[in-house]
Amino acid sequence: MTRNLKVILEYDGSRYHGWQRQREPLTIQQVLEECINRITGEDVRVNASGRTDAGVHAMNQVANFRTQSNLDTIRLCKGINSLLPKDIVIKELAEVSDSFHARFDVKSKVYMYQLFNNPVRPVLCRLYTWPIYKPLNLESMKKAAGHLLGCHDFSSFCGTGCDMENRVRTVMSAEITSFDSGLIRINVEADGFLRYMIRNIVGTLIDVGRGKRLSDEIPGLIAAKDRRRAGMTAPAQGLFLKEVKY
Amino acid sequence: MTRNLKVILEYDGSRYHGWQRQREPLTIQQVLEECINRITGEDVRVNASGRTDAGVHAMNQVANFRTQSNLDTIRLCKGINSLLPKDIVIKELAEVSDSFHARFDVKSKVYMYQLFNNPVRPVLCRLYTWPIYKPLNLESMKKAAGHLLGCHDFSSFCGTGCDMENRVRTVMSAEITSFDSGLIRINVEADGFLRYMIRNIVGTLIDVGRGKRLSDEIPGLIAAKDRRRAGMTAPAQGLFLKEVKY
Repeated sequence: MTRNLKVILEYDGSRYHGWQRQREPLTIQQVLEECINRITGEDVRVNASGRTDAGVHAMNQVANFRTQSNLDTIRLCKGINSLLPKDIVIKELAEVSDSFHARFDVKSKVYMYQLFNNPVRPVLCRLYTWPIYKPLNLESMKKAAGHLLGCHDFSSFCGTGCDMENRVRTVMSAEITSFDSGLIRINVEADGFLRYMIRNIVGTLIDVGRGKRLSDEIPGLIAAKDRRRAGMTAPAQGLFLKEVKY
Repeated sequence: MTRNLKVILEYDGSRYHGWQRQREPLTIQQVLEECINRITGEDVRVNASGRTDAGVHAMNQVANFRTQSNLDTIRLCKGINSLLPKDIVIKELAEVSDSFHARFDVKSKVYMYQLFNNPVRPVLCRLYTWPIYKPLNLESMKKAAGHLLGCHDFSSFCGTGCDMENRVRTVMSAEITSFDSGLIRINVEADGFLRYMIRNIVGTLIDVGRGKRLSDEIPGLIAAKDRRRAGMTAPAQGLFLKEVKY
């Protein structure tokens, strides 16, 4: 009997060329599929909620795969985890209805981006933040983030070479939280994200925070549907897929 | 004119054989002194508030050194930081009175230890926590920590081969904070720490949290002045020198 299994994964993307299996460099999908293969003896294909790019991390990536293995879910989970490298782990593994698909069934996703705003470069959080040395105006950034809310064509934030036809997405929330240490977390929830969308949004918010743009320029920037109007792409190391909702 | 300079350092101890200069393996003191040497042209010796052991991190280690360099403190700090590797940084550099000594003048130090209490191994915080898979009873641990407060002979928590004669130290606070993620932080402030003291305390608190010892056994354990009575030495990767007070 074939079972449909859903997994929740945490990974440190630093070493990987993103989620999706490719011919050459190491990817998370490839490593995971090989470990599942060694446990089940099957040539499984794992569907994730979406690709994460090279260097991007996940706190709770969701994926599913089908297996004929009789192993109970606890053993299967322990077995696969024992083979996975230190920077990937399955946090949960459960049998789900046959119709569940980790990508097609997504209702929304939450991404978190970590900045470190301090004149001194970060050391202990250097692997998971984007350092911004000059002071940021958080209030302007929060105001700018507010303009992202709602349903828009996000072409201005879509990576060049993006072949997605429909670029309309709904942003449900965009929140910025700062900590005494200089750490700043930007959480964005949307029904879907275009390629580099969140990193281009963060790059643009940084421009606002540094006074290079006004927060009120954001609506015009979105309306322009022109990638050249938005800010730089924030580096991958600060980005985390935080949650996938179904 | 010789100036006495105080520095506050952040470092990731993972790669280092501790603070103190040694003949062979890489140490933080050695790397720092070499960078200062390249900037000032002098063969300086840096005094830290105390050694940190191999693999132990620092959020705010304090040290001082003397220099005849005329460079202003901002330039000196930037210059040294530009040479330091990514896992060491000077957060502050300031001229202080000639009498200041980073070790002799310490009033108290605060160490933080990070546990990750979760049945699933940590990935994103794996480099800076000690994973404990079985559930911990936090209330018992907090009660046990309370017994450490005050002035005691801490021989029972002193690493074997410790040649310190006076092992009496005063613990001003010992607090345990838990987070939803499974992260647990243990903060201990004392007027001084014996070798491995904090890591042996953490190992003992884990025994209490797992029900292997009662929190009320701590006073007897301290009174015994016998290292064999305490728990295991917690691994270095979870330990941070958080603050040094003068």
